Amino acid sequence: MVSQHSPIDQISQFIGRLPGLGPRSAKRITLALLQRREQLIEPFVLLLQKLQREVVTCTTCGNFDSQNPCAICANANRKRQLCVVETVADLWAIEKAQVYFGHYHVLGGMLSALQGVMPEDLPLDALWKRVAAGGYDEVILGLNPSVEGQTTAFYIAERLKQYAVPVSRLTIGVPIGGTLEYLDEGTLTVALQNRQAA
Amino acid sequence: MVSQHSPIDQISQFIGRLPGLGPRSAKRITLALLQRREQLIEPFVLLLQKLQREVVTCTTCGNFDSQNPCAICANANRKRQLCVVETVADLWAIEKAQVYFGHYHVLGGMLSALQGVMPEDLPLDALWKRVAAGGYDEVILGLNPSVEGQTTAFYIAERLKQYAVPVSRLTIGVPIGGTLEYLDEGTLTVALQNRQAA
Repeated sequence: MVSQHSPIDQISQFIGRLPGLGPRSAKRITLALLQRREQLIEPFVLLLQKLQREVVTCTTCGNFDSQNPCAICANANRKRQLCVVETVADLWAIEKAQVYFGHYHVLGGMLSALQGVMPEDLPLDALWKRVAAGGYDEVILGLNPSVEGQTTAFYIAERLKQYAVPVSRLTIGVPIGGTLEYLDEGTLTVALQNRQAA
Repeated sequence: MVSQHSPIDQISQFIGRLPGLGPRSAKRITLALLQRREQLIEPFVLLLQKLQREVVTCTTCGNFDSQNPCAICANANRKRQLCVVETVADLWAIEKAQVYFGHYHVLGGMLSALQGVMPEDLPLDALWKRVAAGGYDEVILGLNPSVEGQTTAFYIAERLKQYAVPVSRLTIGVPIGGTLEYLDEGTLTVALQNRQAA
């Protein structure tokens, strides 16, 4: 019998609101914490406090790191490319693929008329400044192929035309391992129209 | 670029080892913590510390609660029934169903020759004592229908024969919402053998 205001219920409700988790998984995690409290609760607290104390947002690109500028921005061996992404999660996903070795610019959101996100709400001035400073041979728009993502990519591409820098975007197509049967019509249309010689 | 020893990676690895979570969901949760650190990190720390400080194991039944004996053991209005379960999670699941209003005895494990779990490794002496004290009209074995669960149920049922108390166990059958197609043969066999008049 757990009352609504017990510590168990409070932390379960909190954990259940974290992304990807719900009430059931939250209860399971809370139980695991209690069952192995020596190994879990105190170390968890220390790691959270360390995260809070040591991790900062890179004021150049928006990445999270223990240093500012972040390890990517500070790395002089990185290529003179600039990849614009929506979130740090996207940045991490690209890093994990180990196929891109340039720099990043994290927008933290997408332009959206519906949600009232205007250009001034995103760090776009910082982007123009970075490009204007002339340190990059290419700007890659690594934005999601959603309506907002494509709107934002179009807006950025238009604004970057005044600088003498090539602007590219990710290819839309059939994902490896994806099945045509469950693919949306938009992707299929683009993949067909942009078909390549086999 | 996140090094293996960065606070981000340390807490991601920690979170990824919690039940039901993996590396991807852990990264996602870590990012959420960083993106809304004001609302999330400090409250999370406080809730974990509160959990650690205030929640205790009930020395009577093994439940987790802010009080000892727990609210269930302390509730004089509870029926004179004793339900034996493997984990606190099982206890919570039964409580959530709101169909049982007796007491519990959490074993914290099952007898297992394979894993070397012997009767003396479980709080069985405490169970015999509770039953011997004569406060219960029925003992319900609420154990999982696994090999270990059934072995443990059989062992307990045998040992309880010396006390004048009825011992029952949960019915095995087709779960509501389950599909026969994906049901294991054991359950199907039992559900057929114990079939009831329609």
